[in-house]
Amino acid sequence: MPPGPRRPKGVVLLSGGMDSATVLAIARRELSELHTLSIGYGQRHARELMAAHRLARHFRVKREVVVELPVASLLRSSLTDRSRRIPSGRRRRSGIPSTYVPARNTIFLSIALGYAESHRLERIYLGVNAVDYSGYPDCRPEFLRAFNRLAALATRSGVEGQGRIRVLAPLLRLSKSQIVQRGEALGVPWAMTWSCYRGGRRPCARCDSCLLREAGFRDAGAVDPLVTM
Amino acid sequence: MPPGPRRPKGVVLLSGGMDSATVLAIARRELSELHTLSIGYGQRHARELMAAHRLARHFRVKREVVVELPVASLLRSSLTDRSRRIPSGRRRRSGIPSTYVPARNTIFLSIALGYAESHRLERIYLGVNAVDYSGYPDCRPEFLRAFNRLAALATRSGVEGQGRIRVLAPLLRLSKSQIVQRGEALGVPWAMTWSCYRGGRRPCARCDSCLLREAGFRDAGAVDPLVTM
Repeated sequence: MPPGPRRPKGVVLLSGGMDSATVLAIARRELSELHTLSIGYGQRHARELMAAHRLARHFRVKREVVVELPVASLLRSSLTDRSRRIPSGRRRRSGIPSTYVPARNTIFLSIALGYAESHRLERIYLGVNAVDYSGYPDCRPEFLRAFNRLAALATRSGVEGQGRIRVLAPLLRLSKSQIVQRGEALGVPWAMTWSCYRGGRRPCARCDSCLLREAGFRDAGAVDPLVTM
Repeated sequence: MPPGPRRPKGVVLLSGGMDSATVLAIARRELSELHTLSIGYGQRHARELMAAHRLARHFRVKREVVVELPVASLLRSSLTDRSRRIPSGRRRRSGIPSTYVPARNTIFLSIALGYAESHRLERIYLGVNAVDYSGYPDCRPEFLRAFNRLAALATRSGVEGQGRIRVLAPLLRLSKSQIVQRGEALGVPWAMTWSCYRGGRRPCARCDSCLLREAGFRDAGAVDPLVTM
């Protein structure tokens, strides 16, 4: 790391998927102090949270926070409701799929904002992506801009002016294959990550998330150790 | 209720204090379907949540939701940390007091947004007040405007255009005595409410919240049954 201005402190919202794992590797280089925040919300399986835990250890975070929000009965989605089917295949071109969890990223970012303010962290990293993505409204650049504007008004640090808290989404404009390339260059341990919406022993290779991941590795000319293992 | 356009459905963020009780009475008149959402966050006492429960029953809500968020160790405030003292007396003119909970209203509104979207409710009511208030940044009109802008971008309903979800704060520009007058006119059962930051058997009459409440009743020429009981 070259000499320069003081590096900031920050927290990464870590789901355990390939995107947030890549963001964690990026944040590791950019921050002087690294925290992770993994939020459960009654999704179908704990594999994601286990993946997040392994990644946090791998990247030697200063503090790893896991919060389980008891909101599964409040938020309607096929990811939180066991009576609903998770669709197979790539999503239709238009429309928001049933795996959308209402206001999920708004809730996650709000908790990260309170955590960052409480611990004097200046940055929140989020692994959203608006290119090869699932069509969720809260993964778009305009959503992130609006959240940053809100964060400046919502917090003591924003009002009193000593260092606003900013949300960064370094993968926002990358394709899935570019994310794979970035992660390969940074040494992301893909075998520790988990992307499948279903929580089986192996990825199902049929849900939208698995298909996006598979295409990303293929287009990048890389090998996904989770599939070949 | 005079005939007119279909009345909307909505959810009230109900803390159990005098402000949210008054908002509940207002929403009861404006909505065709009324839900309440009471969120615990490890604050010092459960009296507030008990008050919320009594009020929800009194106003015959369709669904009463109580969520306890395990975030006390994440958010630093004298309201969530038992080792810190809750200050006595009115707050100093400037500055944000130690009872400020980082990003609390942002977190509450985010969860309400997910709930509203999941249940097709068009309105979220919040009892914040920017006149006789505690100096919290997330009680100001500019914060609410920014949240409404975010909500339109964050949700399916905002993006697909079939009815945006709006946050309303009907007390925003009222003084505490105007809130008392409004509540008296609407028959708010003040004895069911709880405002004190401390959780004793009776209000402490010394914390900022008790002093604000006392002045509000006095200036309105009304009697607070919680004090005279």
